[in-house]
Amino acid sequence: MSALNPRKLKELEPIFYPKSIAIVGASQEKQKTGYQYVDGLVSSGFEGKIYPVSTRGGELLGLKVYPNLSAIPEPVDYVIVSIPRQSVLPLLDECAAKRVKAVQFFTAGFAEAGDDVGRELETAMVTRARQGGFRIIGPNCIGVYCPESKIPLGSWTGLGEAGSVAFLSQSGGVAISIVEMGLARGVNFSKVISFGNGSDLDSIDFLEYFAVDPKTTVIGAYLEGVRDGGQFLEIVKEITKSKPVIILKGGRTRAGADASVFHTGALATPMNVWAGVIKQAGVIPVDSLEELIDTMLLFQQLGYWEGERVAIISGLPGGAGGGIAVSSTDTFVEFGLGVPSLSPQTRNNLTRLLGHVGSILHNPVDVSQAHGDPSIIRKVVEAIVADPAIDLVVAYEDVDLLLRFWSWEHIMEMNHIFMDLRQNQAKPLIVVSPYGNAVLERAKIERILRLSKIAVYPTLGQAAKALVNMRQYCLFHSQFRSQ
Amino acid sequence: MSALNPRKLKELEPIFYPKSIAIVGASQEKQKTGYQYVDGLVSSGFEGKIYPVSTRGGELLGLKVYPNLSAIPEPVDYVIVSIPRQSVLPLLDECAAKRVKAVQFFTAGFAEAGDDVGRELETAMVTRARQGGFRIIGPNCIGVYCPESKIPLGSWTGLGEAGSVAFLSQSGGVAISIVEMGLARGVNFSKVISFGNGSDLDSIDFLEYFAVDPKTTVIGAYLEGVRDGGQFLEIVKEITKSKPVIILKGGRTRAGADASVFHTGALATPMNVWAGVIKQAGVIPVDSLEELIDTMLLFQQLGYWEGERVAIISGLPGGAGGGIAVSSTDTFVEFGLGVPSLSPQTRNNLTRLLGHVGSILHNPVDVSQAHGDPSIIRKVVEAIVADPAIDLVVAYEDVDLLLRFWSWEHIMEMNHIFMDLRQNQAKPLIVVSPYGNAVLERAKIERILRLSKIAVYPTLGQAAKALVNMRQYCLFHSQFRSQ
Repeated sequence: MSALNPRKLKELEPIFYPKSIAIVGASQEKQKTGYQYVDGLVSSGFEGKIYPVSTRGGELLGLKVYPNLSAIPEPVDYVIVSIPRQSVLPLLDECAAKRVKAVQFFTAGFAEAGDDVGRELETAMVTRARQGGFRIIGPNCIGVYCPESKIPLGSWTGLGEAGSVAFLSQSGGVAISIVEMGLARGVNFSKVISFGNGSDLDSIDFLEYFAVDPKTTVIGAYLEGVRDGGQFLEIVKEITKSKPVIILKGGRTRAGADASVFHTGALATPMNVWAGVIKQAGVIPVDSLEELIDTMLLFQQLGYWEGERVAIISGLPGGAGGGIAVSSTDTFVEFGLGVPSLSPQTRNNLTRLLGHVGSILHNPVDVSQAHGDPSIIRKVVEAIVADPAIDLVVAYEDVDLLLRFWSWEHIMEMNHIFMDLRQNQAKPLIVVSPYGNAVLERAKIERILRLSKIAVYPTLGQAAKALVNMRQYCLFHSQFRSQ
Repeated sequence: MSALNPRKLKELEPIFYPKSIAIVGASQEKQKTGYQYVDGLVSSGFEGKIYPVSTRGGELLGLKVYPNLSAIPEPVDYVIVSIPRQSVLPLLDECAAKRVKAVQFFTAGFAEAGDDVGRELETAMVTRARQGGFRIIGPNCIGVYCPESKIPLGSWTGLGEAGSVAFLSQSGGVAISIVEMGLARGVNFSKVISFGNGSDLDSIDFLEYFAVDPKTTVIGAYLEGVRDGGQFLEIVKEITKSKPVIILKGGRTRAGADASVFHTGALATPMNVWAGVIKQAGVIPVDSLEELIDTMLLFQQLGYWEGERVAIISGLPGGAGGGIAVSSTDTFVEFGLGVPSLSPQTRNNLTRLLGHVGSILHNPVDVSQAHGDPSIIRKVVEAIVADPAIDLVVAYEDVDLLLRFWSWEHIMEMNHIFMDLRQNQAKPLIVVSPYGNAVLERAKIERILRLSKIAVYPTLGQAAKALVNMRQYCLFHSQFRSQ
């Protein structure tokens, strides 16, 4: 019997698809969170009702401000709270009376504060929520990001396209960073949730939701600790049978774990327990925000890859691709991938296309000798992609260098070769493009490529690590597919 | 007796400070290297004489084109050659007759081509150079970058400021990447040399030169193999007594080493030999272009650091710095640095400045509670820098997020706190600022900070690794300082 529960979808629906949102602690002051949540919803075009609530009344951003929840004439699904901690209990009584579905507390100063008052308040909040029949997100969290519903992460991020990547985070700051850096890199999210102290709804609830959410195919997480390791393992084991779960664990080190106590009030889960979860459940563990994004991006763009043998193309726009070829081979091999010789037929083809002198034809392939001719480059890339000895092609594209020698049209023509190949056949192709001076042009090319399902990485190492992460999950996953 | 030879300065002076340069194989066609070398020198404002040489004669970019070297009426120090390999021997006779000092061959197709003709030609070239009393750089290389002399790397890169970082490379492509990515990151070079097959002058010669070059304080290298491991070890051991040597070894893996044979014709030095060199000579080994740049940048900006204890500041501009604090602590500790508790006095100071609830005061320090007030942030950063338990301060600055809440002036005011502290006291401060959407603003801040000797990194991991590299070298080096 599967541990996955389709009823979870209905249960958390008001959080990601609320018809109405009240912001308690709405403020006229732009630097206050109580202003920013309202502003975020209004500017993002949230299509449900928005009810600012403040004892001061008046208007905010063209919306009537209600003195309290009860004064709102219509039902309220979801409440965002940014008021001092001493006022939260009476508010929860109001929430119960108003029959709201869920309440998110930006307010901090509870279990994570380290004092008895905070701890007791948090326990009391959960009790009232249970009695009142609604759920709590937080406290000490920044809540929901759901582009499909046009809900931004407060005012901390913009609103990107809706996509297939879900992300849950014990940390608001990490949620902000992942959304923002993810959007810049082309990760499109289905939902993101920052749940802070997780006093009521916690990582397990949101994992259960994402597990059955039809909009979500990839799940990322930032977690410092989990309440119930056994239950966590159980649910993750079920999820990884159908969706990859990529986790950045906060508090991997003693010093990090110490910091974590003051952060979300959670005891960081010890690494030996964690290692067991990772191994048994096929979780993909990552060590940094970048690796988390790199890996989520790869799953979004490629879906599935359990290959091993990589072909590397360097030497664009021509000139000197040899050292990059050698160095990138080292990197891919050191990360655990293969850079094998191309098959004799492919090598013959390439010798015909590129000649022999001064080029490296064995893989890595230095295409300097194409001298930037798009028709030759196209044939070269096609020949490499078609080689049965190769599972994936990596093209190294240095935008600063391209711009020195080629027109924008010429650069686009070359990128269209990659895009065509990615669209018209199954073998994946990714691009590594370093950050340099031409940051705007590079960003433009990255955007165009990712629309064609090409994943773009700033460094060879990041690409290699993401590929290894995907490969390991897909190998783990193959036991379920063959059944 | 030191193995360092001050005469090397004089010997290679014509390569980095030529009074006149001839380009043999000068071309009117913009996509030809023979055009690009001339164009690069002209556009960069090279102040010596530039003599294009081509049998076709005429004019090129306003310069008279000479039919051959002998036709040039004045002395020629340095010759850049971009003609087919079959024409190089007669050219070398001309060079001897003209009494040139050094000849750089862009021309490829020699030892690296893998045929007997290439190998024999390369041997013959060196013989002629010895007889003619001049030196060869290359063949199969792109030559010199020297901003002080206004010599760019052909047309492959622009011309940055002159600085203190020297770089030598067996690969032209790596030289291009390092200069270009280095300039974008603020690395200022004294000299860069791409020497390709190294038939005559090779890594040892250039290391000897950089060792005694007064303009150079940091030496980076990309090397696939060295001709004489014992001699190499001897010279590097001497250099590291006074200057750090950072080496990216190409061909660390079998596949990479195989590729290297087709690249520069050199057999890659086996990794066990290499490991000995690294250990005995105090070389800093790096695994990627980024780590090479990160480490050179740190030496340029900090000079010297053998500390271990890092304080981390997160939570700018305010909001949610906890998860980044926890995660960055993990990263620094995993790379081998310490993130210790601040001293009790500093913690008292911080509690006074930031209050207690919701902030992490033990290190990492989450300054969210300063709510962006520059006068509070200044006092917080000053208190942390002054703590004797701390050797270095890392500030995490997310430009996308800053721009959402602060004006440009406000952002600059905060950065001036960092810049003032870096200028007015000895303890180093570095900034980690992730790439996001605001790429231009981020680049601007990076530029301003580095002018105040602050090193800026795009990821926590890159900063941590560079610090560990520096720390290890400085510990190694301390044995020579204490004598």
